Amino acid sequence: MVEMKEWDGFDGRLWKEEINVRQFIQDNYTPYEGNEDFLTGPTESTNRLWDALQKLQKEERAKGGVLDMETKVVSGLTAYGPGYIDEDLKDLEKVVGLQTDKPLKRAFMPYGGIKMAVQACETYGYEVDPLLKEIFTKYHKTHNTAVFDAYTPEMLKARHNKIMTGLPDTYGRGRIVGDYRRVALYGIDFLIEEKKEDKAKCGSGSMKGEVIRLREEIAEQIRALEGMKEMAAIYGYDISRPAKDAKEAIQWLYFGYLAAIKTQNGAAMSVGRVSTFLDIYFQRDLDKGIITEEEVQELVDHFTMKLRMVKFARIPSYNQLFSGDPVWATLDVAGTGVDGRSMVTKTDYRFLHTLENMGPAPEPNLTVLYSSRLPENFKKYASKISIATSSVQYENDDAMKPEWGDDYAICCCVSATRTGKEMQFFGARANLAKCLLYAINGGVDEKTGDQVGPKYRPITSEYLDYDEVMERYDDMMEWLADLYVNTLNLIQYMHDKYYYESAELALMDTNLERTFATGIAGFSHVIDSLSAIKYAKVKVIRDENGLAKDYEIEGDFPRYGNDDDRADEIGVWLLKTFMDKIKRHHTYRRSIPTTSILTITSNVVYGKATGSMPDGRKAGEPLSPGANPSYGAEQNGLLASLNSLTKLPYEWALDGISNTQTINPGALGNAEEERVDNLVQVMDGYFDQGAHHLNVNVFGKEKLIDAMEHPEKEEYANFTIRVSGYAVKFIDLTKEQQMDVIARTCHDHM
Amino acid sequence: MVEMKEWDGFDGRLWKEEINVRQFIQDNYTPYEGNEDFLTGPTESTNRLWDALQKLQKEERAKGGVLDMETKVVSGLTAYGPGYIDEDLKDLEKVVGLQTDKPLKRAFMPYGGIKMAVQACETYGYEVDPLLKEIFTKYHKTHNTAVFDAYTPEMLKARHNKIMTGLPDTYGRGRIVGDYRRVALYGIDFLIEEKKEDKAKCGSGSMKGEVIRLREEIAEQIRALEGMKEMAAIYGYDISRPAKDAKEAIQWLYFGYLAAIKTQNGAAMSVGRVSTFLDIYFQRDLDKGIITEEEVQELVDHFTMKLRMVKFARIPSYNQLFSGDPVWATLDVAGTGVDGRSMVTKTDYRFLHTLENMGPAPEPNLTVLYSSRLPENFKKYASKISIATSSVQYENDDAMKPEWGDDYAICCCVSATRTGKEMQFFGARANLAKCLLYAINGGVDEKTGDQVGPKYRPITSEYLDYDEVMERYDDMMEWLADLYVNTLNLIQYMHDKYYYESAELALMDTNLERTFATGIAGFSHVIDSLSAIKYAKVKVIRDENGLAKDYEIEGDFPRYGNDDDRADEIGVWLLKTFMDKIKRHHTYRRSIPTTSILTITSNVVYGKATGSMPDGRKAGEPLSPGANPSYGAEQNGLLASLNSLTKLPYEWALDGISNTQTINPGALGNAEEERVDNLVQVMDGYFDQGAHHLNVNVFGKEKLIDAMEHPEKEEYANFTIRVSGYAVKFIDLTKEQQMDVIARTCHDHM
Repeated sequence: MVEMKEWDGFDGRLWKEEINVRQFIQDNYTPYEGNEDFLTGPTESTNRLWDALQKLQKEERAKGGVLDMETKVVSGLTAYGPGYIDEDLKDLEKVVGLQTDKPLKRAFMPYGGIKMAVQACETYGYEVDPLLKEIFTKYHKTHNTAVFDAYTPEMLKARHNKIMTGLPDTYGRGRIVGDYRRVALYGIDFLIEEKKEDKAKCGSGSMKGEVIRLREEIAEQIRALEGMKEMAAIYGYDISRPAKDAKEAIQWLYFGYLAAIKTQNGAAMSVGRVSTFLDIYFQRDLDKGIITEEEVQELVDHFTMKLRMVKFARIPSYNQLFSGDPVWATLDVAGTGVDGRSMVTKTDYRFLHTLENMGPAPEPNLTVLYSSRLPENFKKYASKISIATSSVQYENDDAMKPEWGDDYAICCCVSATRTGKEMQFFGARANLAKCLLYAINGGVDEKTGDQVGPKYRPITSEYLDYDEVMERYDDMMEWLADLYVNTLNLIQYMHDKYYYESAELALMDTNLERTFATGIAGFSHVIDSLSAIKYAKVKVIRDENGLAKDYEIEGDFPRYGNDDDRADEIGVWLLKTFMDKIKRHHTYRRSIPTTSILTITSNVVYGKATGSMPDGRKAGEPLSPGANPSYGAEQNGLLASLNSLTKLPYEWALDGISNTQTINPGALGNAEEERVDNLVQVMDGYFDQGAHHLNVNVFGKEKLIDAMEHPEKEEYANFTIRVSGYAVKFIDLTKEQQMDVIARTCHDHM
Repeated sequence: MVEMKEWDGFDGRLWKEEINVRQFIQDNYTPYEGNEDFLTGPTESTNRLWDALQKLQKEERAKGGVLDMETKVVSGLTAYGPGYIDEDLKDLEKVVGLQTDKPLKRAFMPYGGIKMAVQACETYGYEVDPLLKEIFTKYHKTHNTAVFDAYTPEMLKARHNKIMTGLPDTYGRGRIVGDYRRVALYGIDFLIEEKKEDKAKCGSGSMKGEVIRLREEIAEQIRALEGMKEMAAIYGYDISRPAKDAKEAIQWLYFGYLAAIKTQNGAAMSVGRVSTFLDIYFQRDLDKGIITEEEVQELVDHFTMKLRMVKFARIPSYNQLFSGDPVWATLDVAGTGVDGRSMVTKTDYRFLHTLENMGPAPEPNLTVLYSSRLPENFKKYASKISIATSSVQYENDDAMKPEWGDDYAICCCVSATRTGKEMQFFGARANLAKCLLYAINGGVDEKTGDQVGPKYRPITSEYLDYDEVMERYDDMMEWLADLYVNTLNLIQYMHDKYYYESAELALMDTNLERTFATGIAGFSHVIDSLSAIKYAKVKVIRDENGLAKDYEIEGDFPRYGNDDDRADEIGVWLLKTFMDKIKRHHTYRRSIPTTSILTITSNVVYGKATGSMPDGRKAGEPLSPGANPSYGAEQNGLLASLNSLTKLPYEWALDGISNTQTINPGALGNAEEERVDNLVQVMDGYFDQGAHHLNVNVFGKEKLIDAMEHPEKEEYANFTIRVSGYAVKFIDLTKEQQMDVIARTCHDHM
């Protein structure tokens, strides 16, 4: 058993015998059942720094979304000297460390794809040093080039026609949450020792390909750990040893995360579940009387400010998929332990309180791991913050805990992974709506006319027959599942080869579990279309080549989102069928196949590429996001809509089922207290039924329209809304995205 | 079936239906049974160019072995503009193309290992551009770094103690013979089309790791083919189409080889079996009357001159292993077809004749694929050249043909691979002599005292007991075979990953067979030691720690190399046992395990690291090379020695059994004709018994001693000798190597 002087006052044994942060938390945390009255406002330092940062953010927006870009230095752990929000205020920063040498300056990250890295710069008028272009073209191949080297013609065609879409082949896959807490608890030197031991044991001398790969990866991880020490030293800190107090704990943890965002530009760069962990350090110093509540809140505020600053250089097509410049710096609070105790601490309040101290913000992507068994006080406080800021999402701890234990973290929008023990191979989405159209058209794309799928017989009848459609759809989904899994196998292989996440994985167990995440787009439209074919009459409108281009619906039919089993059961069937098909395939690195119903903001792009559907959705219109019912389908109020969602078993979509709802404040009640109570009640009911996720927006459409028309108004500068799986500043959305958000259902009654 | 106008006059169909150079040869070549009288002397151009080159070679030797080195440009297909032997004479060059921009200037090739590339330059006083060091350290990892990332501590220890040695982890593995003839016969565009088709089919959509890897490799091959066209265009040639005449055929073929030596610095960069192929083009033009014999010989001479110029930058430890700056530009002549016809053509004479037109030379490594059924005239001519130049080696076509067909080529010293259809994973050697000492000392290295092998019980008796030694030796070989195969698996994996031979493999079939070459060092010493233990009494001399350091032999015992079955049978057992142990392991990429008894000149280095043996060989003395009997062991003349060799079944050592013999000219007879006849008779007998290989040196020891003492004499400038598996200029050897060569048996009688 190891003992370190920095651990003085901490209880427990097991976490000293092995790397086990979860056990450290369970042995040492202090649940908090009280209310928010202990919280303190922003300090003078916080206000001054936040003002400085807001000024920079304003400049950034004025410059078209990007303040500054690197063009000469390749990002890396030690690529830069120290950087601060404001050189003049640097002594005020209680948590230090920037991605580059200047605030909001975007780093140059070519490993995912040199073409994209160059294009990102050129989009904003920056010219990349020709030497860097040469290095990453002539000497070092990048992920993107390698993937396209290996793609089959079929994959290229399916990708081009967007039946598979959002694939991480032009950007980092992300969705890997390093256990950044390990830096604070153990210090880097101990982590290096453990990795060296892992390497010595790895493979026991047998050198099959997978052992060789892992041995090299461990070597890269050790290199990254050494680099982290150097990186911290640039800021004057020695993280070779554990953190000795509250300030060091949050700083060490942030250095771990900083290592990740300096080396990877994954779509999602989540922070993880850190509040209960940090609370232990805060509480120890509070108990010793060497820190005040104001100082603790200041640490949380300054750390959060750093998370609000994370930026990556992106290309236009990426921004279309993921609107509003998100990074998914997802940070989770609350949850319960396997022993039944609430894991809410004062620090869970402190993180939510940052939305009050510094106003609403899309990042960090604050996520409440919800259970009706959380302390009432905390549930109310979270609801209050949601109503005031629309910046929080909720995920069902009672559904996730049996799968992932009590130390999981959300690695992106909604997907859980066990912290430090599991990584996800992110895999974007298959467009199942388009797949239905392929089933009708015999594999021919309804927009381009390309033969993309197999040349199965098309449906030629005037009216669609349910059984015939179902048979064809099953065959076409079979094809798509096969192609999709193989495409992802190839992408993940190349990502490991050319853009391995050594810094993040250095802070995780060597023998990881891996999930193979697939995803579904167009969920509600498939359900409603099949329902229409089954319960109404759907006439096919064909063009001169016999290609089905549009549909006329005669009669009424049940729609998903109204608690009507006739429709909802189709959704259950669809999810199960797709997942069963996915599961039958070989998945890279023995990963465990999962799926999600989650489209983020890419529903707009996906919709553009998808023809008219038999449910009445016209060609080019956005798909409804995630697992949301189609726009306008929900006729029976919020609760009926939520009930439809609860029927989808989380076990079949372990990567997450995203649901975004907007509630008119009036629908929740007149007084604040009533609204808070009502929202708590809605969520208790929803999650107790087993639903997975809820994005809560509380505002009316009129506010959105006004913000769209008057983005210059001061009140809209930080106006944040939840979209599918994350939050954005509304005024950062494109007009098209704003229109889409406005078109979504806003519930006026429960 | 494809038809090309350049094929006018060629017979056959199958080679037009598919890439099949062998079939083209069989359908079109003209066997030649006549004598050498048709040969012509060097042209004026040849003499002038060869003089210029010799001057450069002299300068090179005067500068310590290296004339010039690149320090700013990374070698690649199109890294340089055109280069010539002499700018003033460039119009005389009938075959053009240099590795760099200047003759004998060594290219900078960092992909095998940046440290080695830099060290090579620094050894000769050159300073590498710091930018290149940075690129290949910070951005692009190289093979050597990757291998050391993945090595286990056990591997490092075994490597350091030289029980595994010469491993290709600090240099390119080489031993891949691209089918350079394809460039001439098909032209690059056709080859690209075929590769594209292969890629489209590869894996049929299933994306397991091995399929993804191969798909990416094909993409790299296509990139290399495109690069070859650009490379040729720099010299003013369009190799997108097939060669239309003799001059283009040899030039196109050379461009294929040039692509290999511009991109890889493998230990062996062999040319292959090209003579019969080229003869078809020569004969067509001769028949048409558009070329003369002088012009044909000039093409062969100029091509050969280019092969004499191939150079790589090497580090001192490499030069110790492979003395005399060899590149194994092995070029094979003769052999017979599966239909029984001799494949000897006039061009096989022409290649041997280069040793007369331009004097002896170690490169290209001229290899006669020997059979007693070759035309008598040719056998005599080859013998005559051997006697005059000691620059030729012989390999048993009758032994190899059943395994490899009639289009194999030698890919290094002695190892056969089917041209264009097979590659070898080169694997250097396990020191089985040292392994015997480990068996005696319980895994402790007799030189360093390190516990390298497993901690088995050492032998503690005063006299060695045969049965006890054999039991321990079997256990220790088991350990070594396991470690050795796993080490090679790792090396080959990393070589594929970081230093893939895309240019060479682009000229081969996509679905290759791969052999997994292992090797044995110390062969004769194990045999003689075990024989001594069995038939004499061997007393162990131990140091103060009980470590066996030396042996005293009481009585006489039979030695390998005297046609004495008692010793020779131990050799057969040793080979079979080791190979059986190797075969039981997983080998990378489903390769076929083989072994060789072949040490090249590394016998000196290996010997240095090996303690005293129970056969009387003292610590540090050279091991005998390859499958050669120990120095001084051969007491019964050349034929008895050769007979011992013939007992080793080639089937068990398909990577080759190397035998180097030196015969005093007087032992072969007094007149030249008598010597020629006798040498033919010796080889007929030797190879008819199934032996694999023979290096023939014909000179006396006194010549060697004189050359060592007077290297400045003009007659020794090109004095070439065969060592184990290749030829060297004697004066290019280190003093130590020269002493070793002198110590070897020189047969004074048959």
